[in-house]
Amino acid sequence: MSNTFGNIYKLTSYGESHGAAVGGVIDGCPAGIEIDMEFIQNELNRRRPGQSNIVTPRKEPDEVEFLSGIFEGKTTGVPIGFIIRNTNQHSSDYDNLRETYRPSHADFTYQTKYGVRDHRGGGRSSARETIARVVAGAIAKLALRSTGVQINAFTSQVGSIALPGRYTDYDLGKTEESIVRCPDPATSDKMEELIREIRKNGDTIGGIITCVAKNVPVGWGEPVFGKLHAALGGAMLSINAVKGFDYGSGFDGIPYKGSESNDVFINQDGKITTTTNRSGGIQGGISNGQDIYFRVVFKPVATILMEQETVDIHGNETVLKARGRHDACVLPRAVPIVEAMTAMTLLDYCLLAKTNH
Amino acid sequence: MSNTFGNIYKLTSYGESHGAAVGGVIDGCPAGIEIDMEFIQNELNRRRPGQSNIVTPRKEPDEVEFLSGIFEGKTTGVPIGFIIRNTNQHSSDYDNLRETYRPSHADFTYQTKYGVRDHRGGGRSSARETIARVVAGAIAKLALRSTGVQINAFTSQVGSIALPGRYTDYDLGKTEESIVRCPDPATSDKMEELIREIRKNGDTIGGIITCVAKNVPVGWGEPVFGKLHAALGGAMLSINAVKGFDYGSGFDGIPYKGSESNDVFINQDGKITTTTNRSGGIQGGISNGQDIYFRVVFKPVATILMEQETVDIHGNETVLKARGRHDACVLPRAVPIVEAMTAMTLLDYCLLAKTNH
Amino acid sequence: MSNTFGNIYKLTSYGESHGAAVGGVIDGCPAGIEIDMEFIQNELNRRRPGQSNIVTPRKEPDEVEFLSGIFEGKTTGVPIGFIIRNTNQHSSDYDNLRETYRPSHADFTYQTKYGVRDHRGGGRSSARETIARVVAGAIAKLALRSTGVQINAFTSQVGSIALPGRYTDYDLGKTEESIVRCPDPATSDKMEELIREIRKNGDTIGGIITCVAKNVPVGWGEPVFGKLHAALGGAMLSINAVKGFDYGSGFDGIPYKGSESNDVFINQDGKITTTTNRSGGIQGGISNGQDIYFRVVFKPVATILMEQETVDIHGNETVLKARGRHDACVLPRAVPIVEAMTAMTLLDYCLLAKTNH
Amino acid sequence: MSNTFGNIYKLTSYGESHGAAVGGVIDGCPAGIEIDMEFIQNELNRRRPGQSNIVTPRKEPDEVEFLSGIFEGKTTGVPIGFIIRNTNQHSSDYDNLRETYRPSHADFTYQTKYGVRDHRGGGRSSARETIARVVAGAIAKLALRSTGVQINAFTSQVGSIALPGRYTDYDLGKTEESIVRCPDPATSDKMEELIREIRKNGDTIGGIITCVAKNVPVGWGEPVFGKLHAALGGAMLSINAVKGFDYGSGFDGIPYKGSESNDVFINQDGKITTTTNRSGGIQGGISNGQDIYFRVVFKPVATILMEQETVDIHGNETVLKARGRHDACVLPRAVPIVEAMTAMTLLDYCLLAKTNH
Repeated sequence: MSNTFGNIYKLTSYGESHGAAVGGVIDGCPAGIEIDMEFIQNELNRRRPGQSNIVTPRKEPDEVEFLSGIFEGKTTGVPIGFIIRNTNQHSSDYDNLRETYRPSHADFTYQTKYGVRDHRGGGRSSARETIARVVAGAIAKLALRSTGVQINAFTSQVGSIALPGRYTDYDLGKTEESIVRCPDPATSDKMEELIREIRKNGDTIGGIITCVAKNVPVGWGEPVFGKLHAALGGAMLSINAVKGFDYGSGFDGIPYKGSESNDVFINQDGKITTTTNRSGGIQGGISNGQDIYFRVVFKPVATILMEQETVDIHGNETVLKARGRHDACVLPRAVPIVEAMTAMTLLDYCLLAKTNH
Repeated sequence: MSNTFGNIYKLTSYGESHGAAVGGVIDGCPAGIEIDMEFIQNELNRRRPGQSNIVTPRKEPDEVEFLSGIFEGKTTGVPIGFIIRNTNQHSSDYDNLRETYRPSHADFTYQTKYGVRDHRGGGRSSARETIARVVAGAIAKLALRSTGVQINAFTSQVGSIALPGRYTDYDLGKTEESIVRCPDPATSDKMEELIREIRKNGDTIGGIITCVAKNVPVGWGEPVFGKLHAALGGAMLSINAVKGFDYGSGFDGIPYKGSESNDVFINQDGKITTTTNRSGGIQGGISNGQDIYFRVVFKPVATILMEQETVDIHGNETVLKARGRHDACVLPRAVPIVEAMTAMTLLDYCLLAKTNH
Repeated sequence: MSNTFGNIYKLTSYGESHGAAVGGVIDGCPAGIEIDMEFIQNELNRRRPGQSNIVTPRKEPDEVEFLSGIFEGKTTGVPIGFIIRNTNQHSSDYDNLRETYRPSHADFTYQTKYGVRDHRGGGRSSARETIARVVAGAIAKLALRSTGVQINAFTSQVGSIALPGRYTDYDLGKTEESIVRCPDPATSDKMEELIREIRKNGDTIGGIITCVAKNVPVGWGEPVFGKLHAALGGAMLSINAVKGFDYGSGFDGIPYKGSESNDVFINQDGKITTTTNRSGGIQGGISNGQDIYFRVVFKPVATILMEQETVDIHGNETVLKARGRHDACVLPRAVPIVEAMTAMTLLDYCLLAKTNH
Repeated sequence: MSNTFGNIYKLTSYGESHGAAVGGVIDGCPAGIEIDMEFIQNELNRRRPGQSNIVTPRKEPDEVEFLSGIFEGKTTGVPIGFIIRNTNQHSSDYDNLRETYRPSHADFTYQTKYGVRDHRGGGRSSARETIARVVAGAIAKLALRSTGVQINAFTSQVGSIALPGRYTDYDLGKTEESIVRCPDPATSDKMEELIREIRKNGDTIGGIITCVAKNVPVGWGEPVFGKLHAALGGAMLSINAVKGFDYGSGFDGIPYKGSESNDVFINQDGKITTTTNRSGGIQGGISNGQDIYFRVVFKPVATILMEQETVDIHGNETVLKARGRHDACVLPRAVPIVEAMTAMTLLDYCLLAKTNH
């Protein structure tokens, strides 16, 4: 439910922003997967604060220690426990938040729901929790290697600056060359400029991350409640600050009629494929062999370095001004998180599909 | 997983379009809920084919029989089995589909995944499956009555015709007066006209359903993977033909900065509330007491009464023209389904919240 | 949880003794399994009342109708809904129980837990619920056919009359020739005689059912909480009237030392096997290729045709004498239920094992 | 499934005997529970090796570090991550086991199932895994404090030496005064003597642990598959070396007729209770307010310090003699594990019962 993700390949995560550590347990990972530690650490580095001069300057190494489930470099089929120590908390930056509800944060809802909360750095509601997702996603990517599945996410919009073309127009291999993680250099430059300006003012900005999964075989996904896109959508919406999701033609397809929207099947050299892919690679909740692509909307980060009116836990009105080190735009760091959730979902459904026969 | 929805209040559904029946089992329903049979049948009637002259003219009574779990008019806490017999199948309308893959339908993916499929009327992939959701949603609404929660969905866009205002501009109580289920009579008329025209041409059209849940108490929702909006989004995306979901400011909030997006807390007569509601009633994945609102995108129905090129299961190219009775626009009939999934999700999280202390 | 059994192959059951029907939904059944209707009905007949003159003379045909998930004689991978109508209820036999708590029945606990109960025939707590298990177990047996797994349960003890030998001493193929379902004719006769005598006095008697599963491949079972014998034990203890479970050497092995209890591995014609099988075919929670065998203890049925003191729902003392048609010993009819739960558990773990790689 | 226990209060555990650590994540713990660190460590000490001179002399401090979910001494409702570092592994003691299958251990089944295994100290199949259970059980005990539930397990039989009376004949508060954890000093002495003798010979011995839960309110437990005793039985059978379980009259009740077995209800000062408790405090799978009591059978530990014949992974016959430090009888150290699993199960069902209304 709340802190476990997946049906067969399952991540259970724990950890608060300013507690001792964040981490998790991966259960159901297939045995015999080679663990490429460098790859996993690199995925963490893509999410890490301080990786470029447009993200928060916090310096956290975010080094993962694996505690179980790996023997002589391979997974053994038993749970993989892992831990990432929190090392750079400035908890005193948050002393003023012990009794104050930050606007559009989870302080008020946690306090009311549980009657108690760890106020430091947002506690459990902090995006620091996503470290566990990146670790489990990295291992899922390793487990998917033998299937040929390729997952690429990238920043496709920041504020009003959007990539002008479709994902097929760009070389997604170039995404990592951009500190914004946008594969088009010209658009990337504009996005970077916008983020710098927003940041200078102590403000924040959101946008869209697009994700593409290629080479997914036909047959992953479960009918009815476990549709592949429902699982992907639920996964994306569980990431901090996400406000929307669509796949295939999505919101943009609304003006078009059925006759303009259907994907025609053809026989291409003995393989059944479609001439268009408005379905986004999923039909009836099951992958159809075409590219799976979807969009994820991120709101601007709620923490701004400006004065805001609010109330405290006693209901007294007060004025808040955030201190500390924050992101003006989370999208560059969220790209690996979107990929991680995608990898976990796809691996989970890959394993489920093995039980169909 | 695939055919069960929910954590505590759980629906497991079964049934194909042209099989003997559709139905389900509701497990985890609280004891002592009064079962208002008229209300439940009315919810089914809102989803039923043949209810107006803009939807499919199929005539199916869709009468539910409860088989267990209700004694002398009240739920007893044990599972509620129910069945709706299929009575008006014209299976011969589908004989030509035994070996043909309909474009943008689930025929190809089911056949490839399972190696076998019931081709009649789409089998399990038919939206006839949603009858079970409406039954379970109706009982969830009855169980939520004591909480004061009020759920209203309505058609807010059909093709390019959209409601001009926000949901707060309309009297949602008027939704049922419109056969399109749009609360604004002027827009409703335009939508109706569009649907008639589309239908005349044998084509189809999609749109948006907006849903509003009022009076949800603070504290429903689980952190991290079980965020309330992630559950709602996954639920909506599991409905046939849904391609997208957003909540609160959603896709429309992208151009705005953090300083323009945050909801300021105030003390209103001793109750903590917010001056705006761009959060859509959910913060950190937990309800904050404000209106929960979200949008659900439906693609145009894939079945069109026009010739389409496709292939058969042997890979031979062929031309398909659908027969039978179909909807030109599913949104009017999908409104109660959106409400049903919302009711089930909210009840589930209401029950989960009882375990927090 | 309460009314769903299994992880991949899942049965969700519903139905009360005197409601409209009992039934269930099987989710996760592999596609392409041939449905042998005669076999399934025969399994139900083995559980049916009135099958011999030592069981309750109630006459219920217990005919199953499948509602979905089967097309042209094969499973399609989607949920299998099924229903068995209740046809021979004498609900008036139970009018006196509306306000009375029967000793050692579930009346008092259900009433206190839920605040409401269907008192007729025990409602949901009636063993009539096990019909759904037998149906799902029969399909599990069909799905297991290709693995070669063979499941045989039999009555090994009634009251103080026990089979003198071990299961390997008897031809388990003879079990069905005995109305007690004991494979040894001499012991069967004594058990039958005892049951007749007990029954004449309006009393009841319990005993032990032993179950053997042969040809289970090495590797079914999950470490730690999902150990194969833990799943089997939990499954057996969920059957009405069951009070105990052991496997392998079980309770009888307590006097023996480790050096007398271990099973020595040997290489038998290139296959690793053990010289003894005190482990009961399971080591570390995982099948080791030897016979899996276990025992299930049934208490005497609580319903006796004798006067008993008790209280009513108001706390008033009263005297109860059961009416109606009851079993003096449930073991003969419970044999197919034990087999059904075993088959479901083994199939579930067979499917889970497919996800290990 | 395999490494997660519970429905609402859930433990996911990880860790191998000779890996870096063992630990787990507790999800679903109610908020606001005061964490008594001394109590938790004491529970671990009861399970710890080296605690007396009849158990293995390994010296491991087994100190738990909590990583999340606790703030200023109280649970916050979010997951509680914890870790216990492995500090005293003599992995070289196991070098000879890399390719050898120990009799009645899990080496062969793990190797065959997963194709790879951590051979050191039994890896994941080691009882060292139960540390995580004791931590989660200790917190469950703390959470249950407000309900008044009292859980006491004790050693009731070692080999053929059994407590002569029923649990009601002894002062269970004296259990901890005995290093065998038997509340009767005379029997305890005999058991201790037997264990010393067995140990001197390098052999091992099993027995029975009895567990009693007092003050459980009426209404915990779910009908059908989630019966309280089925959950308890499954929990106990998931503990290493457990071979059997019964509750209430259990195996010993088989000779008795229904008229001798039923528990008569009476009105005792306005409270409905029973004159006897052969039901073991559970009727229809739901607690009835009487003492819950059950027995758990442990086989002798498979590791003996004597020569045993076996085979290696290549199928070659070989002779094995265990080295290292081992228990001659695990029961004294298993008592807190039985209590822990009982506490977790009861808390889980306590929380589930909150959703019935």
